[in-house]
Amino acid sequence: MIKLAIDAMGGDYAPKEIVEGINLALKEYKNVEFHIFGNEALIKQHLTASKQVKIYHTEEFLDMGEKDPFYQYRHHQDVSLFKAMRFIKEGNAQGLVTAGPTQCVIVGGIFTIKRMPGMSKVAIAPIIPTANGIPRILLDCGANVDAKAEHLVEFSIYASNVIKALYNLDNAKVGLLNIGTEEGKGRDLDNEAYTLLQNNEAINFMGNIEPKEIFTTEANVLVSDGFTANIVLKTIEGTAKGIGNILKKALTRNLISKLATALFLKGSIRQFKKALDPNEVGGAMIIGLNSVVVKAHGSSDAYAFKNAIKQAIRMIKEDVIMKVEKQLNQPK
Amino acid sequence: MIKLAIDAMGGDYAPKEIVEGINLALKEYKNVEFHIFGNEALIKQHLTASKQVKIYHTEEFLDMGEKDPFYQYRHHQDVSLFKAMRFIKEGNAQGLVTAGPTQCVIVGGIFTIKRMPGMSKVAIAPIIPTANGIPRILLDCGANVDAKAEHLVEFSIYASNVIKALYNLDNAKVGLLNIGTEEGKGRDLDNEAYTLLQNNEAINFMGNIEPKEIFTTEANVLVSDGFTANIVLKTIEGTAKGIGNILKKALTRNLISKLATALFLKGSIRQFKKALDPNEVGGAMIIGLNSVVVKAHGSSDAYAFKNAIKQAIRMIKEDVIMKVEKQLNQPK
Repeated sequence: MIKLAIDAMGGDYAPKEIVEGINLALKEYKNVEFHIFGNEALIKQHLTASKQVKIYHTEEFLDMGEKDPFYQYRHHQDVSLFKAMRFIKEGNAQGLVTAGPTQCVIVGGIFTIKRMPGMSKVAIAPIIPTANGIPRILLDCGANVDAKAEHLVEFSIYASNVIKALYNLDNAKVGLLNIGTEEGKGRDLDNEAYTLLQNNEAINFMGNIEPKEIFTTEANVLVSDGFTANIVLKTIEGTAKGIGNILKKALTRNLISKLATALFLKGSIRQFKKALDPNEVGGAMIIGLNSVVVKAHGSSDAYAFKNAIKQAIRMIKEDVIMKVEKQLNQPK
Repeated sequence: MIKLAIDAMGGDYAPKEIVEGINLALKEYKNVEFHIFGNEALIKQHLTASKQVKIYHTEEFLDMGEKDPFYQYRHHQDVSLFKAMRFIKEGNAQGLVTAGPTQCVIVGGIFTIKRMPGMSKVAIAPIIPTANGIPRILLDCGANVDAKAEHLVEFSIYASNVIKALYNLDNAKVGLLNIGTEEGKGRDLDNEAYTLLQNNEAINFMGNIEPKEIFTTEANVLVSDGFTANIVLKTIEGTAKGIGNILKKALTRNLISKLATALFLKGSIRQFKKALDPNEVGGAMIIGLNSVVVKAHGSSDAYAFKNAIKQAIRMIKEDVIMKVEKQLNQPK
């Protein structure tokens, strides 16, 4: 039986959309227990009655704009997120799904759930949009501003296992984000990481990947330090937003194109937006902890949150944590 | 009289498109001398006869895929690019426009034209697409993989002067590229740079800018080290390419949207592409050298190259080099 802890109070539309996401998941998964943390009365307003759910009441929850995760962790152990984490730490669930503030998830994760043996750092690993149908994880999107080459190796091993679990793809291709494709490009960190990635048997390393291939590369895993990959993620976001604005202006610049767009292209534009929507693929994995943790987008609706739940369930089913731990700790 | 050196042999479509770009510029500028370096016979095939031009013949030129700029510099001083640079060094022209291989422009620039007093490093500074009409320079796009905080300050002063020269905008707003907007975000480099930028009177510093605002920020100058800004530039390129692919698929996914696009939206889509096309705005400035150097895109056509020439002329007219030198070297 899979046991999942859910923070019902995290996210811009919590608890309503979160609970409705659970309702959607309840229809799909009959062998999963949902342990829901948050305000019981509010949760019950939306929740479908089921033997698969249990609510753990708490009055406290985190603000989505929370800037001081350490303070919260020290002083508000009763917020839904941290309660859910203790529940996991005590062995009552194998995974957590939350749409709460990312840095609080990281801090709570490290101090309560704790890192898995063999993993030096925790990383944020979202699935990013693709233009060639190849699933792709980008990491570390911001857990560690500084990283050592060894950390990138650990991240790559974990992310390769995530690709296997979520997409049933063996030998995920790993690329090192860099400003040139030739070996020797980039900073000292990149050069050291290149060598380590190339020599690690658990990693199917394909070399340096320039971000101009970010939507079209063969790579399933794009790895860099937590500053660089976060910059890449935010540049994708900014470019998509900017291009969206420019496109909108272009498509409505005169009456004919405005009409044509409204009449014939509504579906196409929706399809276009869908392909760029991270909600379609699910949440970001918080990797390196001693349990599965999926961080759904703060703006998650029920559908997006259900997808994040789905992701966590697959990761648990495929025993990702144990597999990664084994690969990280095998004698060299 | 403005004297411009032109490398006629750099670029994917050289010398034809380069020379035709000069022809276009000849129509616009009557007080500019064009000193053209390259194969005389080939250049003459395309060049409009004019008293404003002079050709300096050489048989040698650089391959666009050149990977070893130092070797080329040591062994092929007669290539058109390096000859043009010596011409500048000897005081015969105030600026250079080339579509040749970037790293060769950097290496030749540093060793022949040399850095300007007060400038510790050279940087690549392209104008990037915008979605809000605000002109914007991103730097350093790859000249220095490592940078110190002081370098970012020098880059910012120079780029602010470029904005003034090209767009007649006083007090260009400078943003530091970072993974969060709050002071204290990012790496040590970013924190040191934040303090220096804030305390420099020549800089109108607006704080940290996340790349999710890259197309929509108020900033005219976005500054970071040569690894990060290059990663941002390449991510914009990759995202634009990916989104283009997705959009194309969406707009041609069935007969109706295909027809509507072909019949009514050709102009709109062209407009959209134009807004994303770096050729529309011109080339990248190579900043920090003792003369104006504009590096046009390798794929420049005549129109794009003419725009790069225009840029160089404005920079010379506005005396950017002298103004920057003055600001950099004034007593503190």
